[in-house]
Amino acid sequence: MNIVIKQRLLLEHLNYVIKGISNKNLIPILGCIKFSLEKDGLYLMSTDNDIAIKSFIPNNQIEKIEVLGEFVVSGKYIYEIIRKLPNELITIEEIVDSKIFISTENSKFNLNCNLIADFPNLDFEENKNSIALDVLVFKKMINQIIFATSTQESRPVLTGINFKIESNILECTATDSYRLAKKTIELDGEYENVNIIIPAKNILEISKMLSETGTLSIHIFNNKIIFNFDNIKVISRLINGTFPDTNKLIPIDSKENIILNLNSLYEAVDRASLLTNETEKNPVKIKIEKNLLIVSSNIPEIGNVEEKIIINNEISTSIEIAFSAKYMLDALKAFACEEIKILYNGDLKPLIIKNNEEDTLTQLILPIRTY
Amino acid sequence: MNIVIKQRLLLEHLNYVIKGISNKNLIPILGCIKFSLEKDGLYLMSTDNDIAIKSFIPNNQIEKIEVLGEFVVSGKYIYEIIRKLPNELITIEEIVDSKIFISTENSKFNLNCNLIADFPNLDFEENKNSIALDVLVFKKMINQIIFATSTQESRPVLTGINFKIESNILECTATDSYRLAKKTIELDGEYENVNIIIPAKNILEISKMLSETGTLSIHIFNNKIIFNFDNIKVISRLINGTFPDTNKLIPIDSKENIILNLNSLYEAVDRASLLTNETEKNPVKIKIEKNLLIVSSNIPEIGNVEEKIIINNEISTSIEIAFSAKYMLDALKAFACEEIKILYNGDLKPLIIKNNEEDTLTQLILPIRTY
Repeated sequence: MNIVIKQRLLLEHLNYVIKGISNKNLIPILGCIKFSLEKDGLYLMSTDNDIAIKSFIPNNQIEKIEVLGEFVVSGKYIYEIIRKLPNELITIEEIVDSKIFISTENSKFNLNCNLIADFPNLDFEENKNSIALDVLVFKKMINQIIFATSTQESRPVLTGINFKIESNILECTATDSYRLAKKTIELDGEYENVNIIIPAKNILEISKMLSETGTLSIHIFNNKIIFNFDNIKVISRLINGTFPDTNKLIPIDSKENIILNLNSLYEAVDRASLLTNETEKNPVKIKIEKNLLIVSSNIPEIGNVEEKIIINNEISTSIEIAFSAKYMLDALKAFACEEIKILYNGDLKPLIIKNNEEDTLTQLILPIRTY
Repeated sequence: MNIVIKQRLLLEHLNYVIKGISNKNLIPILGCIKFSLEKDGLYLMSTDNDIAIKSFIPNNQIEKIEVLGEFVVSGKYIYEIIRKLPNELITIEEIVDSKIFISTENSKFNLNCNLIADFPNLDFEENKNSIALDVLVFKKMINQIIFATSTQESRPVLTGINFKIESNILECTATDSYRLAKKTIELDGEYENVNIIIPAKNILEISKMLSETGTLSIHIFNNKIIFNFDNIKVISRLINGTFPDTNKLIPIDSKENIILNLNSLYEAVDRASLLTNETEKNPVKIKIEKNLLIVSSNIPEIGNVEEKIIINNEISTSIEIAFSAKYMLDALKAFACEEIKILYNGDLKPLIIKNNEEDTLTQLILPIRTY
């Protein structure tokens, strides 16, 4: 193999595949990147057995291709070397079977390679039925729900995001069993039913790789999902198991709808959160009488706080409900609107939060019993 | 005590005094801020017994002063509360001896106070002989030498910066015994001899507090030093002991002077550092023949690197010297010039690095024996 390529171009693609390598990996080959120089261009690949990434640089962007071939080399080292080389043309040559030579005008690196045969076989072949999504719509959706996934491995299905497609509706749900976030997106066509769970960690990596424009195509298999955008393909494993049927948890009706300014509530809860103690499950309280909402909290040895908000409608019930400040702030951060609507069904029933103008995002928080 | 003050103004001053509080402190009173409302304005004070900070807001900047008085309150809580309050007028009142009430239009905080008598007595009284320094000159000097201080408590004097004044010359030195950084500054007048050691941690905090313009005045006592700038005073303790006489270590002559481009050397050593292993004391090597300098390093199981630099003069000796990549990069970062001069006295003698144009900054690195 012998290639001459621009430093910036190679680095841009290494920036993608480096995300497929886990630093914690004890198996050396899973810390490697595979370079495959084929007739059509250079393929870079990496995997930690949980996620696999393939990036492609077409031959018309490469300065010189002399001998086709492939090698497997430590991802950490090749990435750092290319990153620190000047923005010039870089030559990469295989000098003997197990060594590569990287050079620019003033720099010469010899790197030992790993065995090609040891690198996992990755099947990036796509199936015919792909789902197309705008990358920005996808990124926004992930940011609006991913925080609600669980980080505890005791219930693996809750560490993933549930992707459900029925005809032309994609419904994505995340829950850690104390709170839930759900977003629905209308798709451009009709699709077969899908109900899968994708690891949140992988979805987050993919979301970070996406640029701000373009289309993401999604290919779903029995045991994996392939995401395809620009010249990049990412495979994620799926989580086995059945995601809880969360639609039963979300009440359709509500006793009271509380309509108020998103920012006012966020800032009041944020300040009240100063006098709570997450480790001791010290909640924030909301009291509503007519159109006056009071957010309060206290740590007896430190002090207490009361925040006043005038809500935009009048409530006929006396409401007094307690909840985790962190969960409320996480949920409110998912909205970018003027007014929100909180659906109330009782002091010990889940609070539902929605944008007052549209209904595609649902945030649910379980209250905390304080007596 | 009863005061009405702009949120931003109070926060700006809390930003200073919060730096006098250590999070690790187990003694609650050392996590507190003392508010003293006097006729001339509001004084804020904090100390962790290592550093003490006093900030002053003159009465003409305060909206309303009704009752003079003082209280002592948890720094962490008052800081976060003021930080999160909206940019409005804030009222702070003492409601009973041991409680304060903080309020804006919609927010009401009650905070428990600590005993005023428990707060350490701090003497911010200045002496007559102050040394005046431009803040930017001071900040720059600290950045150029502070990295060379030791972090190991086994030799406490090396965890500080040596301040030495002789007539009109201030000489500041830091060393961890493997490397040394020294900067000299010409003062505006003649001063008495001074030779003290200031804890690096405190100097760094002070340096971060300084704005980009103005004058810093320094007052030196037997056991402490006071820094005064804008409306802020900072006391630091001094480290007891005798700082090594480092001038003996710095050779005046040199066998060879190597003159080369700063950036070229920095980038070459930075890349070569990728194939070194700090924990195993794996050094970077420099070989010079005539005007060709080669930086090299290797980790046998990974690979090796050679970097070529053409130097700006011709050397008559054959040089081969090894050193820590990290120490060299730290030393080079302290310069902001085109060309540096490396003073060489033998493969096992300290390397001295200077700006080729001026002589106020000296960086010294001990070589590593590789055989």
